[in-house]
Amino acid sequence: MCRLNTLYMIQRAGSGHIGSSFSSLDIVTWLFLKELQLGSDVEHIYFSSKGHDSPGLYSVMIALGLIPFDSIHTLRQLGGLPGHPDVSTPGIVANTGSLGMGISKAKGMVQANRLSRQKGQRIFVMLGDGEMQEGQLWESLASAVKSGMWEITAIVDRNRIQSDTWVDLTSPQGDVKSRFRACGWRVETVNGHDFEGLEEVFSSVAEERKRPQVIFAETGKGHGVLRFLHSADENDDTPYPYHSGAVDPELYSEAFRELKERIEAAFRSAGGPAIAFHKGPSRECANPLPYLQKLVPAYEDALANAAKERKKLVALDADLKFDCGLGKFAAEHRERFFECGIAEQDMVSQAGAMAGKGFLPIVHSFSCFLTARANEQIFNNATERTNVTYSGFLAGVVPGGPGHSHQAVRDIAALRGIPDMLMAEPCCEADVPWLLATLLDHAGPSYLRICSIPWERVDIEAIPAAIGHGRVLLPGRKALCFAYGPVLVSQALAAANASPHDIGVVELPWLSTVDSAWLADLVKDTDILFSLDNHQVDGGQGTTLGQALASLRSPAPRLVQIGVEGIAVCGTNSQVLAHHGLDAQSLVDRFDEVLRDE
Amino acid sequence: MCRLNTLYMIQRAGSGHIGSSFSSLDIVTWLFLKELQLGSDVEHIYFSSKGHDSPGLYSVMIALGLIPFDSIHTLRQLGGLPGHPDVSTPGIVANTGSLGMGISKAKGMVQANRLSRQKGQRIFVMLGDGEMQEGQLWESLASAVKSGMWEITAIVDRNRIQSDTWVDLTSPQGDVKSRFRACGWRVETVNGHDFEGLEEVFSSVAEERKRPQVIFAETGKGHGVLRFLHSADENDDTPYPYHSGAVDPELYSEAFRELKERIEAAFRSAGGPAIAFHKGPSRECANPLPYLQKLVPAYEDALANAAKERKKLVALDADLKFDCGLGKFAAEHRERFFECGIAEQDMVSQAGAMAGKGFLPIVHSFSCFLTARANEQIFNNATERTNVTYSGFLAGVVPGGPGHSHQAVRDIAALRGIPDMLMAEPCCEADVPWLLATLLDHAGPSYLRICSIPWERVDIEAIPAAIGHGRVLLPGRKALCFAYGPVLVSQALAAANASPHDIGVVELPWLSTVDSAWLADLVKDTDILFSLDNHQVDGGQGTTLGQALASLRSPAPRLVQIGVEGIAVCGTNSQVLAHHGLDAQSLVDRFDEVLRDE
Repeated sequence: MCRLNTLYMIQRAGSGHIGSSFSSLDIVTWLFLKELQLGSDVEHIYFSSKGHDSPGLYSVMIALGLIPFDSIHTLRQLGGLPGHPDVSTPGIVANTGSLGMGISKAKGMVQANRLSRQKGQRIFVMLGDGEMQEGQLWESLASAVKSGMWEITAIVDRNRIQSDTWVDLTSPQGDVKSRFRACGWRVETVNGHDFEGLEEVFSSVAEERKRPQVIFAETGKGHGVLRFLHSADENDDTPYPYHSGAVDPELYSEAFRELKERIEAAFRSAGGPAIAFHKGPSRECANPLPYLQKLVPAYEDALANAAKERKKLVALDADLKFDCGLGKFAAEHRERFFECGIAEQDMVSQAGAMAGKGFLPIVHSFSCFLTARANEQIFNNATERTNVTYSGFLAGVVPGGPGHSHQAVRDIAALRGIPDMLMAEPCCEADVPWLLATLLDHAGPSYLRICSIPWERVDIEAIPAAIGHGRVLLPGRKALCFAYGPVLVSQALAAANASPHDIGVVELPWLSTVDSAWLADLVKDTDILFSLDNHQVDGGQGTTLGQALASLRSPAPRLVQIGVEGIAVCGTNSQVLAHHGLDAQSLVDRFDEVLRDE
Repeated sequence: MCRLNTLYMIQRAGSGHIGSSFSSLDIVTWLFLKELQLGSDVEHIYFSSKGHDSPGLYSVMIALGLIPFDSIHTLRQLGGLPGHPDVSTPGIVANTGSLGMGISKAKGMVQANRLSRQKGQRIFVMLGDGEMQEGQLWESLASAVKSGMWEITAIVDRNRIQSDTWVDLTSPQGDVKSRFRACGWRVETVNGHDFEGLEEVFSSVAEERKRPQVIFAETGKGHGVLRFLHSADENDDTPYPYHSGAVDPELYSEAFRELKERIEAAFRSAGGPAIAFHKGPSRECANPLPYLQKLVPAYEDALANAAKERKKLVALDADLKFDCGLGKFAAEHRERFFECGIAEQDMVSQAGAMAGKGFLPIVHSFSCFLTARANEQIFNNATERTNVTYSGFLAGVVPGGPGHSHQAVRDIAALRGIPDMLMAEPCCEADVPWLLATLLDHAGPSYLRICSIPWERVDIEAIPAAIGHGRVLLPGRKALCFAYGPVLVSQALAAANASPHDIGVVELPWLSTVDSAWLADLVKDTDILFSLDNHQVDGGQGTTLGQALASLRSPAPRLVQIGVEGIAVCGTNSQVLAHHGLDAQSLVDRFDEVLRDE
């Protein structure tokens, strides 16, 4: 029943992780029903370190009444259940979704309990199978042994498939059980879908009072619906299709039917009552725009083309080959494609060394992980004065569904202090090839920041005259609104057109560079300059403009920075943009609020 | 002889790592003499991942004529031999000093060689013993096996002592040989000071054509001079005194004599010529200032005092207990002190979980590592909306001796985009307690940025009226110069006093926050505002001021941002400040250059 509800939640949300939720769900169910002792004097703690399996977790919590049933309709909605766990949800004790932090967090909880003399509370942590590629996991293990943290039970959801395909074809981690054992952990194995086995193994580790324990639970990714299991065998690197995202309506019906029949059969054989199935409330569907642009495929083409001419170009990936538009390059230049697994630090340092040997590496991941997890490694490469390009995807506050672990809105700030770093973001498909070429030609590190979601077309033919120059998309006298990327450029244009004030729109693809002379000339007759950041206000392009304006010799317009403030919220794209005041209507209002005072 | 030269280099530089250089030196010597095949068709590569042992490495390279003999006098001098390896030195192939990156870099080199069809080049990488606590090391191991990287030979300098004390008392890493083996590496062991053993083990691994290999070389930290070995036994956590820094003149003479006698005896017994010992050229000594202030001891007191009142305060450390002023706290509140080893990501996530359980954690390390290596973990904690304070030491461009791996000059930028992050830097001892208290009281993440070197006193009694307000230290009409921290506040005061122009000095301890109304009032009659950043220009306090000025309604002065541009150079403190235009004389000139045009 939890699987069925999970399926519904993800389908309704339009995104979420089915495979991972289904593989860990029997274990989560067992933990909540039998191990956590909820309601007793000492409630134990469970959280998922991978966090991607949160829809499954929510379905269990809903079934037990720990969160209201109606929240089943709110996955990835503003004010609803976040795409990845967040402590704002009752019963959630840790923010996860960014991989590898779970054991560290569990250790902190144990230390806190021991200091508080709170005895007997155990911490159960779910680890992903692919997650074992993250360095922090291995960094965190040994010291749990030094402190004899018997309170910690890790469970590896050993489904053998990560984002793209089989773990062993991506980046096998050797004899992982021996690795845990060599750190001093007690290691157990179980079939993660067999409740009798789960009972036995959890009873056994409950007696442990010396060492932390890890249970390797053999599971199937997508277990519970036949079609959700991987159709390829373990030597076949065909992508696994059900890692994330809703499925097509036909498959949804088929999966629903399969689960429904099994539930009904189980109830019948147990002599239980008939089960009623409810239909969710109808959902407001946004009208799809007819001519969406897609920057990821545009990048895929641009990269493959660039690789034809640049024989030293190599591409590195961290288990996001398709999300980062690497399919074509990997197929055409198999030898120059390096799949590094979910190991961003390792990937970035490898790229640096390849650059030192004369190659031209482009490093790929989601912006949130690439620029933060590997922050020191990117800097280290920069100090070797080589040319490495970092292509970061899923940049910006939308998509809003995955939540703050995946919304890259501080990446510009995090890379800003790296010497010679050139950063740019395309705002249309036509921008991608020339921006990529410009960054590849830049003698130093560079960062290409890419919006991953299809978005309203903004077609610009012209290329700026120089690095640091932007493009005037709409002339305006009273005020100019700067923006970058498809999401905010389209909102800026819509808002400027809808505003009663005379507001122009300038697209500036350079995120941390602006040419002062060009800027001074452009703004000389302007009263107000708005900057729109698909990023935190502090540290984004508005900050670039702010420091440039403040340093101008000529009188400069006043700058009003608009962007994300506070922690980015989770929700649909329109909810998230509206919440942060970044949709066209909010901008019209904001423009008016500022300009009517002038 | 290399040890003697190493001893001289470090003594002359006034800093550097004796213990680590001496423990790895016999291995490095062997590699250069016998394994690297320098001058042959296929020269093999050696680099040290820990990088701290660079004086020993330089002494070997000098002995072989790979770098000029005269460079022996230039360790940690501008244009000389950098404190940690940098590719600007001939023969150095990787920038290291920031731990854990070595195997990743070696893998990148192997991939590049294979793509270039350069066959047979082997990569030898020295790993530190404490370095094995870094997650990136464990992240990097398994995929070297997937690609059958027999070309890589790692050597662990297993001296069993890290920065503070014994590895096993700091954060033991379990059965590390088994951990390597479980990743698929071939594991060998040798006495790292026995040349016959080294010959045997390197001959043996030279035949390997399938797997990467690691040689655990049992060594003594400081080996070669009796007094440099640890006097405590392995159960005694007395600090090891010779991890870094020059020694006192008496010990220097004693060590010199011991090495000299051994060299002479060896030459005599081999029938070699008499050895001549040269005295280095005389060194220009800066006159020590009589009343230096020391912020680290001030922090040590402030922390211990804060802990008396705040019972929930806990402190976490990454093997820099003494560098981070934690001695007193650790002694007085043993239960609340958590030594995490060189595992910054693990430490930060543990702190987050402790905060989630109601504790008030302060996380300690050098700023360069804390804010970069653990960047994503700091953000993750912030999204849990807890109160965690990060105390970063060795902040800023000086000391200049360790070089760019240790000079934290992009930390403000790297943390700037984290919601609610409050950042501050004390400029005098009296600032430390109230700033620490303010950050601890801040409901959200905070960062205390601390200059580690004793510096000229700047005594300020007054406390700013509010967060975001600064203190006018010297009134001025024509221009105001903003600065923070002891180094640049003292330079600003000296420059303003020496300048013919009417320049005031304002100290602003808040790094990413300024109160707009206070600023507007302060600068209303000022033509020029200088910002001085002990940080990269882009992303430092000048950036904070820039965006604030650009947003003011009233006419604002023009901002001239002064700070580090490009990669921070290595050298003495005065060389580094002068190079980056941050010493008082450079500032006088810069002020004049700007103001005479106005």
